[in-house]
Amino acid sequence: MSLVVVGSIAFDAVKTPFGERERMLGGSAVHFSLAASFFTDVRVVGPVGDDFGDEQHAVLNDRGVNTDDIEHVEGGQTFFWRGHYDYDLNTAYTDDTQLNVFGDFAPKLSEASKSADTLFLANIQPDLQREVREQCGDVELAGLDSMNLWIETARDSLAKAVSGVDLVFMNDAELRMFTEQSNLVKAARDVIAMGPRVVVAKQGEYGAALFTEDGFFALPGYPLEDVLDPTGAGDSFAGGFLGYLDAHSGDLGQDVLRRAMTYGSVMASFNVEQFGAEQVQALGHDRINTRFDEFKSMTHFEAIPIEPRVLR
Amino acid sequence: MSLVVVGSIAFDAVKTPFGERERMLGGSAVHFSLAASFFTDVRVVGPVGDDFGDEQHAVLNDRGVNTDDIEHVEGGQTFFWRGHYDYDLNTAYTDDTQLNVFGDFAPKLSEASKSADTLFLANIQPDLQREVREQCGDVELAGLDSMNLWIETARDSLAKAVSGVDLVFMNDAELRMFTEQSNLVKAARDVIAMGPRVVVAKQGEYGAALFTEDGFFALPGYPLEDVLDPTGAGDSFAGGFLGYLDAHSGDLGQDVLRRAMTYGSVMASFNVEQFGAEQVQALGHDRINTRFDEFKSMTHFEAIPIEPRVLR
Repeated sequence: MSLVVVGSIAFDAVKTPFGERERMLGGSAVHFSLAASFFTDVRVVGPVGDDFGDEQHAVLNDRGVNTDDIEHVEGGQTFFWRGHYDYDLNTAYTDDTQLNVFGDFAPKLSEASKSADTLFLANIQPDLQREVREQCGDVELAGLDSMNLWIETARDSLAKAVSGVDLVFMNDAELRMFTEQSNLVKAARDVIAMGPRVVVAKQGEYGAALFTEDGFFALPGYPLEDVLDPTGAGDSFAGGFLGYLDAHSGDLGQDVLRRAMTYGSVMASFNVEQFGAEQVQALGHDRINTRFDEFKSMTHFEAIPIEPRVLR
Repeated sequence: MSLVVVGSIAFDAVKTPFGERERMLGGSAVHFSLAASFFTDVRVVGPVGDDFGDEQHAVLNDRGVNTDDIEHVEGGQTFFWRGHYDYDLNTAYTDDTQLNVFGDFAPKLSEASKSADTLFLANIQPDLQREVREQCGDVELAGLDSMNLWIETARDSLAKAVSGVDLVFMNDAELRMFTEQSNLVKAARDVIAMGPRVVVAKQGEYGAALFTEDGFFALPGYPLEDVLDPTGAGDSFAGGFLGYLDAHSGDLGQDVLRRAMTYGSVMASFNVEQFGAEQVQALGHDRINTRFDEFKSMTHFEAIPIEPRVLR
């Protein structure tokens, strides 16, 4: 099995109340592929500039991520994002965005990437998502992420992109905005009516909820005392999720989906505990399994039915 | 075992996007005691006026709730609250508050109430909560709820009230405000350091999280497509929770606490599906058990550890 991700490759400058980094490897495709690499073979597609060198390739290659489809634009600079968070780490404030080579990104997938089993369309312009989806006509599973910007500026195109995938990852507010439904259950149902078989509502510190035609599952966030940097949490989540699904042949039964949700949550929790991808890239499968077990033990309980009471 | 609740008894006028009621039985002590009545013997303490008659007593008595300690203030009127909700049902807007007899409430507990096993101090002024706590010196378990108003205007008294109980029920924002900690895990730990053994963070549609000295448990909200009226959800939650604990002799082990969380969530979910206490007062144990099982099935999963990957 193999998984291909198309998205941004970036350098991030991030400041939170708990520290800062001036320049670290980031971008949706990077966070996604590092997280997914613990579960399956991953290929990453995205543009970089002259400032993206051996050191950055090595971070991905050391995790087994295939970087053959990273497109090096001669004379260009890699996408750069500068942002900060206050104590409410749910909101990212953008201080500077330099699209650079990402501004003219026209995804070109090699034959190897086109024949992957699973495709993830990270948060890029929906026209591009559709174009890539068409290039990968034979994938077994396709998923996408999006954001408020595209819901506001390219809703029709996004709707078409959504109708062409099996899984949609959005946060609660995006699902509500996209469907114009204040109730999340109705919003998820509306998205499923458009074609996808699975809708994952990302809920930040509250975890995530999973909707299918006739199933519902929810998992809380891991109770972290120290969240250092939430950047990339959503992509790490999707990476763990789709990486696990790809390793299980795209089985969309509840059992596999629920474990995928949990591995996604595990990867997101490791992501936010350190800046950028610093912790995820250095993980081992033992720590991943241990945290999976913690998720299980903090959510499970036994049922003992109550008896009717005789009222006096 | 028996449970006594001290709080407000009210008439509520509520308008939501899905309907309205001009005058229905409400108040924290009412919602709490109706929910708790499915699990244990309940006594309710609170003041009412001349407008509170046989019909209102009957709602409580029909559920076996003992109303001997409801204090009838001659010539007075019962606490009245008028409020509305917009599509974001998380925020209640108060349009009118008439404290009436509740404004001079000085709780007087009968010997039977003072000798209850479990005490719930619903959201009233913290000085009153402490006074009641002292009157009930021998209870095995005491819990309290509070709100932003008391955190802002009576923080020191609230801190003393908190230090005198075993369980604290607050929503996330209140826990953060009360402890001045932006991180919820740290906030809960700070409250536990003040004396309580259990902190329950109520999280609205996201469910609830339970913190003990060395345990953590979280349960999502029930996925409802139609929330008609959230008024009383928190008190119904606490009623199911403490009712279940009281029926289990105040056992605070994780197994019982987790089932208490789940029964609390069950009762809250029934509460918000209809206006006021309309649905809770008409429930049967069978529907309660069925929804408990649904909570279990929407949160459980099996663990299958991943293997280390050979990276190419």
